[in-house]
Amino acid sequence: MELDFNTKVFQKETITMAGKKESIIRGGRDLFHLLPKAFDGIKQIGVIGWGSQGPAQAQNLRDSLEGTDITVKIGLRKGSSSWGKAEAAGFTEANGTLGEMFQTVRESELVIFLIADAAQPKVYRELFENMKDGATLGLSHGFLLGYLDTVGESLPKNINVIGVCPKGMGPSVRRLYEQGREINGAGINSSFAVEQDIDGRATDIALGWSIAIGSPYTFMTTLEMEYKSDIFGERGILLGAVHGIVELLYRRFADKGMDRKEAFQHSVESLTGPISKTISKHGIRAVYEAFQGKEKETFERAYSASYLPAFEIMLENYEEVSSGNEIKSVIMAGERFNRFPMSTIDNTPMWKIGKEVRAKRVEEQIPLDPFTAGMYIATMMAQIDVLKEKGHVYSEIANESVIEAVDSLNPYMHYNGVSYMVDNCSITARLGARKWAPRFDYILYQTALPAIDDNAPVDKKRIDEFLNNDIHEAIKVCGELRPPVDISVQG
Amino acid sequence: MELDFNTKVFQKETITMAGKKESIIRGGRDLFHLLPKAFDGIKQIGVIGWGSQGPAQAQNLRDSLEGTDITVKIGLRKGSSSWGKAEAAGFTEANGTLGEMFQTVRESELVIFLIADAAQPKVYRELFENMKDGATLGLSHGFLLGYLDTVGESLPKNINVIGVCPKGMGPSVRRLYEQGREINGAGINSSFAVEQDIDGRATDIALGWSIAIGSPYTFMTTLEMEYKSDIFGERGILLGAVHGIVELLYRRFADKGMDRKEAFQHSVESLTGPISKTISKHGIRAVYEAFQGKEKETFERAYSASYLPAFEIMLENYEEVSSGNEIKSVIMAGERFNRFPMSTIDNTPMWKIGKEVRAKRVEEQIPLDPFTAGMYIATMMAQIDVLKEKGHVYSEIANESVIEAVDSLNPYMHYNGVSYMVDNCSITARLGARKWAPRFDYILYQTALPAIDDNAPVDKKRIDEFLNNDIHEAIKVCGELRPPVDISVQG
Repeated sequence: MELDFNTKVFQKETITMAGKKESIIRGGRDLFHLLPKAFDGIKQIGVIGWGSQGPAQAQNLRDSLEGTDITVKIGLRKGSSSWGKAEAAGFTEANGTLGEMFQTVRESELVIFLIADAAQPKVYRELFENMKDGATLGLSHGFLLGYLDTVGESLPKNINVIGVCPKGMGPSVRRLYEQGREINGAGINSSFAVEQDIDGRATDIALGWSIAIGSPYTFMTTLEMEYKSDIFGERGILLGAVHGIVELLYRRFADKGMDRKEAFQHSVESLTGPISKTISKHGIRAVYEAFQGKEKETFERAYSASYLPAFEIMLENYEEVSSGNEIKSVIMAGERFNRFPMSTIDNTPMWKIGKEVRAKRVEEQIPLDPFTAGMYIATMMAQIDVLKEKGHVYSEIANESVIEAVDSLNPYMHYNGVSYMVDNCSITARLGARKWAPRFDYILYQTALPAIDDNAPVDKKRIDEFLNNDIHEAIKVCGELRPPVDISVQG
Repeated sequence: MELDFNTKVFQKETITMAGKKESIIRGGRDLFHLLPKAFDGIKQIGVIGWGSQGPAQAQNLRDSLEGTDITVKIGLRKGSSSWGKAEAAGFTEANGTLGEMFQTVRESELVIFLIADAAQPKVYRELFENMKDGATLGLSHGFLLGYLDTVGESLPKNINVIGVCPKGMGPSVRRLYEQGREINGAGINSSFAVEQDIDGRATDIALGWSIAIGSPYTFMTTLEMEYKSDIFGERGILLGAVHGIVELLYRRFADKGMDRKEAFQHSVESLTGPISKTISKHGIRAVYEAFQGKEKETFERAYSASYLPAFEIMLENYEEVSSGNEIKSVIMAGERFNRFPMSTIDNTPMWKIGKEVRAKRVEEQIPLDPFTAGMYIATMMAQIDVLKEKGHVYSEIANESVIEAVDSLNPYMHYNGVSYMVDNCSITARLGARKWAPRFDYILYQTALPAIDDNAPVDKKRIDEFLNNDIHEAIKVCGELRPPVDISVQG
């Protein structure tokens, strides 16, 4: 076991995934009484920023710490457009839970830094300077570390630096936490990392934070592995690939003679609906096993033709991230926003038809399309195999490639379409989806579809590798660490 | 005038483009007798590599230097698959004009280094070590310099370093040179740069090289400006954008009810045929002026809706190049080729239909489509405006955005389809086209087309800016420096 940790507060467990051991912590409301011990010495937690993760984590922390003497305070720029939103959630200057960004940093023993990635380079120096000596800096993403690497700078030495990184977008972190009042343990899994531990307390602070925001289970990673898998995953199956695949399949089905609504049902509706739900409840292989005869063959043909092109783009995607190129791109894009604000992607005929289709949806009538399933699952498996090749732990692979997709993002897409999904993700994710969706679309269009149309035979070896991939066992282990909950996406 | 030079051999001229002065050299076969003077002290020119530019430049140099005592010798790796191709072109070991790469480097006073960009990082150290003290290194692209910048290395100090960069792909450099036997001055314009001049001879060696390969006129740049505009341009209007635009327009026209062949004619055929030819012969504005009434309005609406989204991707493209990201991407892609050789892009139904359409083509019946023209020219103008904003000289802008497109690349695409074009470009260009074509497609699809379909009004200010852009005057000046020749793409 390469990554391991010791905790003085919680109970460490060892799980075995695909034959490899990982140390984890299980969450749950029954552990909230341990939070003051984990947060020993912390009087105020400053949550900096109010984007995707900010509102979710701040509210979950406040709720979990209710009745303790630990304050959760939001820090924002004066005049920020988020000020009113934080107030609406009950964080106010009057009650001492909302204040100027750096003032809040100076007061807090734990500073959770959640401003948009692209804005971090402009702020981090002042953040570091304003932190109390001996305080703890918390990140929900390794982006800042990746940025510091690319510019050759490093973290200040007088603070703890930890990461707790929920494997789901902010709104789902909040929503499942709320559902957790009824079903103890409902929530979004998180990874955690200890980048700097100056006083031996960093691990328990991180674990406390993760449990407080409602993570059903928490596994260990490093901030470097985290930002690589995270930025990669959102460009891949979580957002970029899924967007590119449904654009392609919708065109494909319409070209083959389906009417537009039917084409939407067989592509988007099928993917975010029954395919995603089947994976969530019964695992990836269950989708394959649901097909018989001709349909099974259609799945196999789509899978066989799609896996390698998808792998090619996934590998490029990973290396663009791990080389620092993507981080540099995000920073540069941030500097263009004043001239070119992010455009919307859902004004095309397809997404307008989607709105009509959703309005009249009968969930039970959505088809489980074998072609869509074959291409989507081939792309998911390609992502998994790239992460395995690059040495990520199975918990990270399973959460970043499967669980976050089918239990956090896809349900939101299913409910409200692609625009809602995109607008509720981080700017880094939204930029990445714009950049990589078209790459998946083009390569599958230019290589997979022509192969299928030329009757390329099923690649039996490839199908066997899919069925025997050890990720299936790992996902099963993950599933047992978490109660099955359908995320409630309404309202 | 920021860039200027002195020549002891040729006659410098000053031209005025858009009110700015540039020093240039006019080419022509009547100047070939000056080449021995320009190449004084050079007994052997080693041309290293046999890709796109290698065969063209080596043959042109050999022909232009016929009757002198200067040898042109090809240097390749032993066992290279290009060995036989060089022999077929008359470069053989027997006659002393073909040899091992580094042996050839050691023997030559001028080394023209033309191996694929992605392979350069593996070779450059050995290249530098093997060069004669006081020799001249010639590059046809600033890529190597860009690479050295990204890794923090520099050029050896004991050699001249010059660039001569033809603004057209290799096959057109050779083809127009051959046509130049009939029409003196036919050829592809080149930029030149003097990066290091240790003996005062670098400028004349560069100018001699440019004249010898048949450049009608040669303008000055720096290798840095060159690689930025070159890598940017091929990702933009030269390859990437044009590929993305025709994919989009073909789908669009088919969606609007045209049959597939008609859709191909109104998109690809129109763009690489009459639109491109009109620009080549009469300038960009002439396309606009060819339309009347309803058609003129269609052009204006397509232009108005397309310019800003195209500019957005062009700006991103430029900054990805100038930051070094694209260079790093090309290097990383080169390392993946053993696992994922470059796939072909012309197996889709569209390009199969294109083959049929070309076979039955009646040139005069190809429509000048106003929608295609509006979108293509908006994208071309966006590229021009980005290069102006980034401070490139007008010769570079005009050649990289217009002349290279309509006089070098588009005619090949028109003759043989997109695959021929792609396969005859550099690997850097081919990689870039794959990466950026889908970006142009998606952004125009997601923002320009919905605006047009929602009847967004014509942006009169934008049209005025187009008509009054000072690039039109600059292109006219370029045109006067060069005899009008239809490139012969057959055979």
